[in-house]
Amino acid sequence: MARNTKVAADPNAPPVTRTLARFVATHPSTGWSDAVDREAHRTFLNWVGCAVGAARHESVEAALGALAMLRPSAQAAVLGREERLDMAGAALVNGISSHTFDFDDTHLKTIIHPAGPVASALLALAEGTGASGRQVIDALVLGIDVACRVGNVMYPDHYDRGWHITGSTGTLGAAAGCARLLGLDEEKTAMALGIAASQPVGMREQFGTMTKPFHPGAAARAGLTAALLAKHGFTASPKALEAPRGMMQTVSTKNDWNEITDELGSRFEISFNTYKPFACGIVIHPSIDACVQLRERGVAAADVERIELKVHSLVLELTGKKEPKDGLEGKFSVYHGCAAGLVVGRAGEPEYDDDFVNREDVVALRRRVVATVDDSIDEASADVTAVLKDGRRERVFVEHAIGSLERPLPDAALEDKFRTMADPVIGAARVGALLAACRDLGNAPSVGAVVKEARP
Amino acid sequence: MARNTKVAADPNAPPVTRTLARFVATHPSTGWSDAVDREAHRTFLNWVGCAVGAARHESVEAALGALAMLRPSAQAAVLGREERLDMAGAALVNGISSHTFDFDDTHLKTIIHPAGPVASALLALAEGTGASGRQVIDALVLGIDVACRVGNVMYPDHYDRGWHITGSTGTLGAAAGCARLLGLDEEKTAMALGIAASQPVGMREQFGTMTKPFHPGAAARAGLTAALLAKHGFTASPKALEAPRGMMQTVSTKNDWNEITDELGSRFEISFNTYKPFACGIVIHPSIDACVQLRERGVAAADVERIELKVHSLVLELTGKKEPKDGLEGKFSVYHGCAAGLVVGRAGEPEYDDDFVNREDVVALRRRVVATVDDSIDEASADVTAVLKDGRRERVFVEHAIGSLERPLPDAALEDKFRTMADPVIGAARVGALLAACRDLGNAPSVGAVVKEARP
Repeated sequence: MARNTKVAADPNAPPVTRTLARFVATHPSTGWSDAVDREAHRTFLNWVGCAVGAARHESVEAALGALAMLRPSAQAAVLGREERLDMAGAALVNGISSHTFDFDDTHLKTIIHPAGPVASALLALAEGTGASGRQVIDALVLGIDVACRVGNVMYPDHYDRGWHITGSTGTLGAAAGCARLLGLDEEKTAMALGIAASQPVGMREQFGTMTKPFHPGAAARAGLTAALLAKHGFTASPKALEAPRGMMQTVSTKNDWNEITDELGSRFEISFNTYKPFACGIVIHPSIDACVQLRERGVAAADVERIELKVHSLVLELTGKKEPKDGLEGKFSVYHGCAAGLVVGRAGEPEYDDDFVNREDVVALRRRVVATVDDSIDEASADVTAVLKDGRRERVFVEHAIGSLERPLPDAALEDKFRTMADPVIGAARVGALLAACRDLGNAPSVGAVVKEARP
Repeated sequence: MARNTKVAADPNAPPVTRTLARFVATHPSTGWSDAVDREAHRTFLNWVGCAVGAARHESVEAALGALAMLRPSAQAAVLGREERLDMAGAALVNGISSHTFDFDDTHLKTIIHPAGPVASALLALAEGTGASGRQVIDALVLGIDVACRVGNVMYPDHYDRGWHITGSTGTLGAAAGCARLLGLDEEKTAMALGIAASQPVGMREQFGTMTKPFHPGAAARAGLTAALLAKHGFTASPKALEAPRGMMQTVSTKNDWNEITDELGSRFEISFNTYKPFACGIVIHPSIDACVQLRERGVAAADVERIELKVHSLVLELTGKKEPKDGLEGKFSVYHGCAAGLVVGRAGEPEYDDDFVNREDVVALRRRVVATVDDSIDEASADVTAVLKDGRRERVFVEHAIGSLERPLPDAALEDKFRTMADPVIGAARVGALLAACRDLGNAPSVGAVVKEARP
């Protein structure tokens, strides 16, 4: 029964479900610049590296144990593992593993991690259906565009009220990408988006638990299933996104509908995707970057009297832990980040394991870091000076950290990051072939090479 | 990274995730009155009838087509069908079929249809794991208690803002029931609820499409999966329901936390479950009921000059369609409802197919129904007078319709309803055995008899 309601809603929202469906179903293959296509390959590559890297994590073990109870068919690969699952299960597990290290890609404007939901669904579906690499890259560009544009509409209100925006928009991105990969027409693509719109995933309260990386996985599975249902004639509201009691007005009070249509088909949100070089929160990155640069200039940890760090107050508020006890606490310590950067020249996942955080020389150096607040310095910047025992001073000012939009992570660094994660899981020999397969995906007849080389 | 937020939230909510987990994990088997246990059997029976009845609906065909692409193992039954699916798939499809006719049970206080999500998950899991019938009934009582109590906390704000409350609370009910069935301890049950809390399903905009019945199905699947994950060590926030950025504060601004704890373990929400005798919206029921009673008193359609109907204005506002063209429009016509009640003495799904709505005698009688608004009559009542061609008048005043909490549907009527739905699908011979299996579930060593007799 209909009922009157006291919650305000806009009955005149534009038909964005239809608009996005038409875009996804009809935009031409490679209908974008080479730069966009390159970014899609970088996004895919980074996502594979993260998923392979976390393939042995206990969250993945637990998920595989649960899914084994369903006796799934062996349709699709779990990256970095021998096990194979049905397409929906593989989408779930690869989504979980790819976000477990919190080291995947970031669409900074919305803090969506778009590859987790979208690529996880696409790789599984592409393997199960024999889609080409080009189809996967096309669907990745379009699926991520849908997720991030929906995010642009609702951010920040939607996030502020508690939604983990990666999962809640990711279901739509995955559904869009899978609809494209299945070759659904505009009408059925609208149905896929509609079915997905009833399944936003993820609450921020879960941060710090396995359910955080579960969000992109569950979004991938839900989006893939939505597309399969639509393909077989399942129906949903063609206004499921924008209607007064549709998804977006239900989960957000901010709805800038123009974010769907502005430059649709000419500006691609994947262009604004970024990749973390350091396995910790973004606010620490400028400080670590500066310390890595000091090391490259020849500053040796043993010669350091102290490190003078000037940063915005937010940095210490969020990551001011002086004596982190373990890897997880290390991620909330700008002091540890600086030490890692100066001692080993990087801050990947290995630099956040418990042993490294407690290594004698690392602890000694982090205690020499003296941080002071200077709110004239932007949150995205850091001013770091090494004062050496001989009295010399070396200063590095980082305006934008490496890995930001302004200073994109170079391909070589992206591949180094990949190796650091994947080498221990599948062996260095395999990693080279896997990197090549990722780089070449757009020209590949299938995802077969990626799947083959991602096995341990 | 943490961030400051502008959305108000209550940091002092009581630990309801923990409270519910302890209740579900530790409440004794059959720890309630015989009346509660009987209501659980009635709920289960009504749910089976609805699912079997809709087993050949196109929504079920579409869902089976989609899931076949995953090549599922044959672990669990699809009610009313030969196909078997893995447990998660069976939970999804039985949830869809059971809500397709909108004829399943209703917890009137929250308008939750609780069996769809909870029973669909439990039957599949019980078949897959060999649980006893008693375990299923216990888990059904407890799972429905969780779903409806969470609904009590948030209703009506949560519903008003756009959530289809059956799906959004159903995930939690399904997770709770499955956790109980799997024998999870308090800690793991809390994790199951936590994982489920990140997956509320369902927007009201989907009403009128297949995605409406998809909601209880998707909730069943998500809850079942959450319990399997928790069993295998997957973690979630132990405050996932109540935290400021947990589920309930994210999806509702009304949160009466005491609804979780008031009489927990002594008052069971399944006691307040109801079953529709008529396959249309609740506001028409008193009018149909009155017409059925007139027929039972000997009033024949052929002798009727006119039917004088006095009802609350809401009845005509919601269901005032004078000339319904087809079955769906018939559901929004109190005139058609009255005609069906008087002509055939019932208004089940067959009385809402296109042919019946256009049957000559039915059309003739509905045109003789004269409805007037009288707001002194309650929404739950109807005052109906048959004026016969010989001038006699027969009047029936229905204060509470059959099927309401005040006049529960008798077992015989519930079983008649079941037969009407199930006979055409599995044959009358089977239906008797299926009814017996449902009635006896609490004593059965397994769900085997239900599953066996529900096949066509």
